[in-house]
Amino acid sequence: MIDYRRLRIALLGAGSVGSQVARLLLEHADELADRSGAALELAGIAVRDLDAPRDVELPRELLTTDAETLIVGSDIVIELMGGIEPAREYLLQALNSGADVVTGNKALLATHGAEIFDAADQVGASVSYEAAVAGAIPIIRPLRDSLAGDRVDRIVGIVNGTTNYILDRMDVEGAEMADILADAQRLGYAEADPTGDVEGHDAAQKAAILASLAFHTTVPLEAVHREGITGVTKQMMDAARHAGYVIKMVAVCERLTGRGEASDEAISVRVYPALIRREHPLASVHGVNNAVFVQAEAAGNLMFYGAGAGGVQTASAVLGDVVSAARRHIAGGAGVGESTRANLPTVDIGQVVTRYQITLEVDDRPGVLARVAGILSDGRVSIATVEQTLEQTPGQPGDDAAEAGSARLVIGTHKALEQDLSETVARLADDDVVERVVSVLRVEGD
Amino acid sequence: MIDYRRLRIALLGAGSVGSQVARLLLEHADELADRSGAALELAGIAVRDLDAPRDVELPRELLTTDAETLIVGSDIVIELMGGIEPAREYLLQALNSGADVVTGNKALLATHGAEIFDAADQVGASVSYEAAVAGAIPIIRPLRDSLAGDRVDRIVGIVNGTTNYILDRMDVEGAEMADILADAQRLGYAEADPTGDVEGHDAAQKAAILASLAFHTTVPLEAVHREGITGVTKQMMDAARHAGYVIKMVAVCERLTGRGEASDEAISVRVYPALIRREHPLASVHGVNNAVFVQAEAAGNLMFYGAGAGGVQTASAVLGDVVSAARRHIAGGAGVGESTRANLPTVDIGQVVTRYQITLEVDDRPGVLARVAGILSDGRVSIATVEQTLEQTPGQPGDDAAEAGSARLVIGTHKALEQDLSETVARLADDDVVERVVSVLRVEGD
Repeated sequence: MIDYRRLRIALLGAGSVGSQVARLLLEHADELADRSGAALELAGIAVRDLDAPRDVELPRELLTTDAETLIVGSDIVIELMGGIEPAREYLLQALNSGADVVTGNKALLATHGAEIFDAADQVGASVSYEAAVAGAIPIIRPLRDSLAGDRVDRIVGIVNGTTNYILDRMDVEGAEMADILADAQRLGYAEADPTGDVEGHDAAQKAAILASLAFHTTVPLEAVHREGITGVTKQMMDAARHAGYVIKMVAVCERLTGRGEASDEAISVRVYPALIRREHPLASVHGVNNAVFVQAEAAGNLMFYGAGAGGVQTASAVLGDVVSAARRHIAGGAGVGESTRANLPTVDIGQVVTRYQITLEVDDRPGVLARVAGILSDGRVSIATVEQTLEQTPGQPGDDAAEAGSARLVIGTHKALEQDLSETVARLADDDVVERVVSVLRVEGD
Repeated sequence: MIDYRRLRIALLGAGSVGSQVARLLLEHADELADRSGAALELAGIAVRDLDAPRDVELPRELLTTDAETLIVGSDIVIELMGGIEPAREYLLQALNSGADVVTGNKALLATHGAEIFDAADQVGASVSYEAAVAGAIPIIRPLRDSLAGDRVDRIVGIVNGTTNYILDRMDVEGAEMADILADAQRLGYAEADPTGDVEGHDAAQKAAILASLAFHTTVPLEAVHREGITGVTKQMMDAARHAGYVIKMVAVCERLTGRGEASDEAISVRVYPALIRREHPLASVHGVNNAVFVQAEAAGNLMFYGAGAGGVQTASAVLGDVVSAARRHIAGGAGVGESTRANLPTVDIGQVVTRYQITLEVDDRPGVLARVAGILSDGRVSIATVEQTLEQTPGQPGDDAAEAGSARLVIGTHKALEQDLSETVARLADDDVVERVVSVLRVEGD
């Protein structure tokens, strides 16, 4: 056990994301220390009500209602309270005391971002906010660092899970918005007052943050053109489908040339429901998922896809920021790697468990399937599906599988050990009823 | 003009990626300085042959055959030579002299990564290698930083563009591999000796790098199980399609529990052609594109998609690393932001140019289409497509568009100015032949 330097972490807020962050900080303390090079000591969790019900049971002794005292002496302050005040005040207090700050507060960043970044610059502290846009999807760091040497021309993002869920179900089920919205509220995908989502306020905040970062400028929330989805009807969805499109609520951040008044460069930032071609990668973003499509001058088209919300998913983004802040803290900023590397054993391919599809050419006579099934079963390979074909598949003139007296068996297996599988396939190949093992393929991506 | 501190950059290699990196460093010098907080001064470009033909014309005075002298005194060394030696020797020389290193050399990292990272640790220098895996796609930084507080369980990646191109065309065209391979070689998507790609050596190197990073361990290249695509036949592709799958060459990095010999944790790293369900996001990765699908304990499923190769695309990843290294250099590592922020004007929505789809309910009589077309043309909105329907579309019982005497016009426009469009729509709405403007939707994602 390495004796790591301790860093004092203050957590403000214990809602769906905050409580998961607290849980992961406590449960994964050893791993996080190895990743960070510092013991991340959760000093306390500031909450409004000590007795409020929470998603995760938290140690009572860590809870406090006194955020200001908790912040004092902290190395990293995680703000997951939401809202403008007192979050803004606490963040400024944290930065002024030299702490690095991690926040998921999109409303605050979209309205007071410049003030907060300036405060951080003055004391040389960092503000990280991966969780503020597109939940668990790493998009802030790629825009800030990975594309820092490129020029982003355009971003089209699905950044609000609630509206994507509603429009997706309208598209798939041919349903009316009112019905889906009621269902979404029941399932917790939409709030009792859905205005912030359906009118595009949430997406507009995220668009302002993305555009600021992508174009290295400050985009005030008022500069974001915003239209909600309430005008989208079942009839419009049907017509879109008919024309080869799907309607998605998108945030568009665009660099324009020769259009600004005083400059030869300007940007446009807007959120609205728009038609997206069915073949576009964004069209296949379903349910509450998010995706951000980026067009950059050199890199070309990139897409980042994943869970756009959810307590534990968003907590992943917060912890990534916390580990980075901790590395920076420890190394005086020089930390680029991690403290320790394990030396995990790599198992032989024989020890891998996966699904397989085995295609066999067998004699076409009674009892063959039973015999093949028996060999598989003896080899601990369990059959999920079998398809037997007698005649030649069209378009396969070179296929000799269907000669007189032969049949083709396509066997899908349940998960099996590669070693069992390969021994079983060898036994099948040797068996009299099997004329040829045509192919053995693994199935991935389940 | 800010008087930035100058950083001396040495570039080793001027192939398809290196020459683009040199071009961008020279052409975008001002922007890169603003992003980095340092003037990135390209001190020289080490090449083997001063007179070799190159993708990009490079200033003759920057070229040198003496890499060792060039490295001396450099702040950042960019290695894009490829191969093991002398790249390894130069990288170690650079690190030992205290330079930060940026490399895209997957073969070197997969075989000598531990040695290079150790050398960097000893002097407190950084090694960045975003370009080594999946070209322009930011995947290294998300794995190293964004997911540092999470636990990656599994990665399934399409990380070799050549094999994806071959398998994709076999799937789409129903063609034989030999024909596609010949075509790919002609088009420059496959090398004259395609062994490194089709036998999976390239994918295996990338898999070793991804697994090392994702599981915080060292994965020797020999531990990667490797099967190439040469055994994949047209017949197998057809059978896969028939069963709802597509065959993709994948790199799989998996965390196993309770399977290692001496430990209760182990990993498996393997590359092979595998069946992927058609509905899986990886199935829609076409051509030479790459994508990396990551499953993490907290974050859930993430996917990173983009160009997997190409000189200018990969140069984007290299420059992102260079800017990060420069920020680190300048700020003693504390640099997390950028030096300057522009204050770009945000244009009003009226100034935005996009495509529209306008749906109108119009009188069903001769001359109406001509009249509508005239109004659009007067308003500087050019028509791309028109569809006219008389009868009610099935499944739209509430649709009153198709009452006696009415027709529905669905007009797709070419790109138009939003302001022109909204004025034109207002004029349409006021016109006698138009009964109702049913919807106006923008088309995004083209």
